[in-house]
Amino acid sequence: MQIDDMIIVSVDDHIVEPPDMFQRHLPAKYRDLAPRVVHKDNGTDVWLFNGIEIPNVGLNAVAGRPKEEYGIEPTSFDELRPGCYDVDARIDDMNANGVLGSLNFPSLPGFAGRLFATLPDKDAALVLNQTYNDWHIDEWCGAAPGRFIPLAVPPIWDAEVLAGEIRRVAKKGCYAVTFPENPEPLGRPSLHSDHWDPVWQACSDTGTIVCMHIGSSSKLVMTAHDAPIDVMIVLQPMNIVQCAADLIHSPVFKKFPDLTVALSEGGIGWIPYFLERLDHSYRTHKAWTGSDFGSKMPSEVFLERVVLCYISDGVGVKLARDIGVDRITVEIDYPHSDANWPTAPEKLHAEFAETDLTDAEINKITYENAMKHFRYDPFSVRPREQCTVGALRAEAVGVDVEERSTTTRARAERDGIVKITDLTPTA
Amino acid sequence: MQIDDMIIVSVDDHIVEPPDMFQRHLPAKYRDLAPRVVHKDNGTDVWLFNGIEIPNVGLNAVAGRPKEEYGIEPTSFDELRPGCYDVDARIDDMNANGVLGSLNFPSLPGFAGRLFATLPDKDAALVLNQTYNDWHIDEWCGAAPGRFIPLAVPPIWDAEVLAGEIRRVAKKGCYAVTFPENPEPLGRPSLHSDHWDPVWQACSDTGTIVCMHIGSSSKLVMTAHDAPIDVMIVLQPMNIVQCAADLIHSPVFKKFPDLTVALSEGGIGWIPYFLERLDHSYRTHKAWTGSDFGSKMPSEVFLERVVLCYISDGVGVKLARDIGVDRITVEIDYPHSDANWPTAPEKLHAEFAETDLTDAEINKITYENAMKHFRYDPFSVRPREQCTVGALRAEAVGVDVEERSTTTRARAERDGIVKITDLTPTA
Repeated sequence: MQIDDMIIVSVDDHIVEPPDMFQRHLPAKYRDLAPRVVHKDNGTDVWLFNGIEIPNVGLNAVAGRPKEEYGIEPTSFDELRPGCYDVDARIDDMNANGVLGSLNFPSLPGFAGRLFATLPDKDAALVLNQTYNDWHIDEWCGAAPGRFIPLAVPPIWDAEVLAGEIRRVAKKGCYAVTFPENPEPLGRPSLHSDHWDPVWQACSDTGTIVCMHIGSSSKLVMTAHDAPIDVMIVLQPMNIVQCAADLIHSPVFKKFPDLTVALSEGGIGWIPYFLERLDHSYRTHKAWTGSDFGSKMPSEVFLERVVLCYISDGVGVKLARDIGVDRITVEIDYPHSDANWPTAPEKLHAEFAETDLTDAEINKITYENAMKHFRYDPFSVRPREQCTVGALRAEAVGVDVEERSTTTRARAERDGIVKITDLTPTA
Repeated sequence: MQIDDMIIVSVDDHIVEPPDMFQRHLPAKYRDLAPRVVHKDNGTDVWLFNGIEIPNVGLNAVAGRPKEEYGIEPTSFDELRPGCYDVDARIDDMNANGVLGSLNFPSLPGFAGRLFATLPDKDAALVLNQTYNDWHIDEWCGAAPGRFIPLAVPPIWDAEVLAGEIRRVAKKGCYAVTFPENPEPLGRPSLHSDHWDPVWQACSDTGTIVCMHIGSSSKLVMTAHDAPIDVMIVLQPMNIVQCAADLIHSPVFKKFPDLTVALSEGGIGWIPYFLERLDHSYRTHKAWTGSDFGSKMPSEVFLERVVLCYISDGVGVKLARDIGVDRITVEIDYPHSDANWPTAPEKLHAEFAETDLTDAEINKITYENAMKHFRYDPFSVRPREQCTVGALRAEAVGVDVEERSTTTRARAERDGIVKITDLTPTA
């Protein structure tokens, strides 16, 4: 497999919502309710909504910045790479990284849509939630047909309403919904209750995949009040093992045999250990706990129903056959700090080079599994030969991917020294 | 490597304390304070101490029972296999399992000694704590020289007092101390504070290894109030990843270059993934978090200072060379429900057979690393050729290792049908 011949579909990137996103779609009577961007005296931009101030956290949008400038301080749109919030610039950044397709998680509403749920008027909350989804599907994804996998934000406050929204957006071609890895910390019933059955039914009926992203329960792993932030950063992905254990021992997969769940940004290197532990615990304890997977082992059910996702995971790639090459997908995580940008093809290729995976197996991992499990069909829009790393990068000539400090960027743009936003339009 | 030629040292087993353990050692003035066993009307035995009732949880002592009888219900001494609490029977059970040496964690005081800390009179608390340690070292371990690795329970309420106890027991040949994987949930300062420096200094000075056992912070992983217990069982070992991340990003290893920590019952299959994540996070974020490992990577420091322990871990054994065969030790976990008893040699051997590990590497894992890191020298007491699985099992002729229900056991013993406690005395 040559780098230029790879095809890459990322099932986990992120949008920083542009300031004007609510204005065009929202009915006049709700326009005053919409989140709006305010530029603060300290130079940062924040969203205001329902009395809540939501900063853009720096780590959420550091693509293109030197590592010294990573941080958790709030930031301003001026400091962001335009690809964070401008869809044309995003396509350029995808092309520069050789990435064909991308699924984009929300930032402003939270991974699980908890922002809209704060509104006491649930009719208004649903209008805002639907406006978000319409903007995302029609404007953001619609701006570049065949380049995005649409993802719906869930009206998390009501399972029936959420089920209805899943059915509504499916009619528009959106077959993925984000859902909290654990709803209980958000004050909602857990995966073990039957509360969410209408949601799983709607997903089953429409062929919608449920994306559970790390951190989507809004519960960070804090080991101690004085633990350095490095501890949280290290632990965050692996924490999704709790969701994995919940899922497999919940009634969800048993009751909904067609439901598929993706563990977004969960990594894969820990999966073989986890599956062995899962089966060992089952064999050892099922006689008294009553756990029952029928004629299968829990690891088998897990690998039939869960889609795994990784950004960079040399250990996991070496174990890919033990995990199952049909279940693994790749992520770029643009523009977050763990993002594999703008050299994802080189980094993915280097990890594959340490294994004896065949081209066919690599293709499954880098794009075919994503196409299948996320019902994504780019080749109907764009001929396959135009979808490779080499072809996409050829379209990105002129895209500036140099790392630069945002101070420099702001000054350079203002002074016209580097015209960073003058990017080649995409096909 | 033949099964009979293996030598097995387990760095993680458990004592169910016998009812009379405090009586012989405790000064008369404290005798009324000592924990005492009470047989309850419901047929269970419980310890009473300082107004607290402490049941023996069934999962803590299920060796020899059919899986259907595993459970979390309180139990009675009559229902336990005598090897749980009787040191001569324990040696027989070790022999039957081909196990040369064993480190035994406490049950009654908790893994981190929190029971004694509940006593308002800290002088009395220390006397009880020291009585426990003296009983453990002199009576339990002393009953079979060369067969046990003594382990001290920490007076956890005071770092200086704890440091003093580490120095006191080291003079008696005890070079291991149990310590919570995370002290903060116990209301004590975290690993990130300098509070415990006298403890780490005492360990460094005496060559004492710190054993952090899963669950020792007394904080179980409960994902949701209605999650089945299977979820907790699956997650419990891997949860120690939080301790691993805390440790490596705490000041402890930097300030105390001679300190070694064992992650007891933590397993090993997740370690390669964790180390890759550790280094990735460090490379990505050190510029702004200020994390600094000098000329080394955090994974290197981790593998220099942490001893890893597993019961059964086929994935981890396959990755043993990636982890480092000098850092891995084995555990039996007798008499807990995950225990590798009485067929540990067969199970360990089967896992090794799936790898190309050499006999020298297997010997490191099954006993040499434990001897080195826990300062355990059985061969000064017992010739090496009498320490093998084959030799020890030859001494266990007559030891009944048949699985049987405790109801049957009790009846069989009472009726004299099977004289289970008539075991061959050890050398």
